[in-house]
Amino acid sequence: MTIKTVVFDAYGTLYDVQSVADVTEDAFPGYGGIITQVWRIKQLEYTWLRSLMGRYQDFSVATRDSLIYTLRSLGLQYDDDAFARIIEKYLHLDLYPDALTALSAMKDRKLAILSNGSPGMLNALVKNSGLDRVLDATISVDAKKIFKPSPKAYALIEEVLNVPPAEVLFISSNPWDACGAKAFGLNVAWIERVTPEAMALACLESETLPPLTMFKILRTQMDELGFEPDHRIHSLSELPALVSAQRS
Amino acid sequence: MTIKTVVFDAYGTLYDVQSVADVTEDAFPGYGGIITQVWRIKQLEYTWLRSLMGRYQDFSVATRDSLIYTLRSLGLQYDDDAFARIIEKYLHLDLYPDALTALSAMKDRKLAILSNGSPGMLNALVKNSGLDRVLDATISVDAKKIFKPSPKAYALIEEVLNVPPAEVLFISSNPWDACGAKAFGLNVAWIERVTPEAMALACLESETLPPLTMFKILRTQMDELGFEPDHRIHSLSELPALVSAQRS
Repeated sequence: MTIKTVVFDAYGTLYDVQSVADVTEDAFPGYGGIITQVWRIKQLEYTWLRSLMGRYQDFSVATRDSLIYTLRSLGLQYDDDAFARIIEKYLHLDLYPDALTALSAMKDRKLAILSNGSPGMLNALVKNSGLDRVLDATISVDAKKIFKPSPKAYALIEEVLNVPPAEVLFISSNPWDACGAKAFGLNVAWIERVTPEAMALACLESETLPPLTMFKILRTQMDELGFEPDHRIHSLSELPALVSAQRS
Repeated sequence: MTIKTVVFDAYGTLYDVQSVADVTEDAFPGYGGIITQVWRIKQLEYTWLRSLMGRYQDFSVATRDSLIYTLRSLGLQYDDDAFARIIEKYLHLDLYPDALTALSAMKDRKLAILSNGSPGMLNALVKNSGLDRVLDATISVDAKKIFKPSPKAYALIEEVLNVPPAEVLFISSNPWDACGAKAFGLNVAWIERVTPEAMALACLESETLPPLTMFKILRTQMDELGFEPDHRIHSLSELPALVSAQRS
């Protein structure tokens, strides 16, 4: 098998969605951690639920609605300025520190993003982070009006880049995304990072439970959806060697 | 508007999914609460993800797979007997105490369940709890090989019972289910009960955060999916009067 194209999930894989925590903590002191985690869990839920209901709205709507849900569920009052400042951070998420180096080392392959993000959100994010200089394409599921892990979303890779699934390596830190890509027929590398659910629990338990329990809950865990990624990595810096090895 | 048919969600609405906590606590002392909550969250996620992936397997598979995920994510070892005892409880969930009285008081209407449960799980549950004596039908989404909140699932009510959506009152405690039913065009009553997410947080935070914060996190919260239920109730015992009032 030759990997000609490397396609990345964006949120949680190249960009650290946890990096909104400074802004949420600034707006709601003491609640930054729990807002960040509940927000991410609900943001994903809303993409799946709207897709299944046949009521697609783009990712900016899911992102706003899930933040509203989160603040209301925590009983927090907010004004429009504070809300706008938090949402704005989603266009300026931190790149993971190893992202730019890893992508630059694979410039002999076609490099792209396939993301649930709306075209407007993704274009701003890619430009603000400088990834526009190394990426060949930024693909939004918005063209299909349905979110990952629908196979219609993953089909965009071949449709836009004109490469068959067997020649694509797809990278995601999101277990459900890795399973969806595998079910579709892509080669998949899963980056084991801590999930928002685990972070949410850790936020609340750090002072109550013994370290061993906390460690256990903090473990990442592949989803049980009947699919396994082809590769498990812990950092984007492992990718260039992995891709080269697949080529031989 | 005349309500001729009252249709209930099963899990969390008529049957208390929290009632597995005794069995999980017995199998894993100290972890009963957190297992129960994480299991429920992942069980729902797996129904949505499998539906969206086009990889439907029935609810018994989602229920088993999500329990496996939960135990692994908590780093808990288990044997087949302990696993089987926990799963078996799903066929013997406790009825909410007000369920049988409320349903019996509406016997002049057609009464049914529409549930994500597999036919085998639902038939056992309805028989074991005695609801087979008051229900006219138990409808499983399995006939459509897709889970709620897909509109295909809610369409089963008319197809099986031969009543148009305008004459149906649908009752669910699950916010996403209430939104899905409303988006489809049913009349909807939402029972405000505590969500598994809130319970999961409460399990872990009860000894750390002040009571006010805990109360805030424990609040139920309607989802922000662009739909609102027609009625909000706190107990099934409010239903007979609500249904009668709609008839006039």
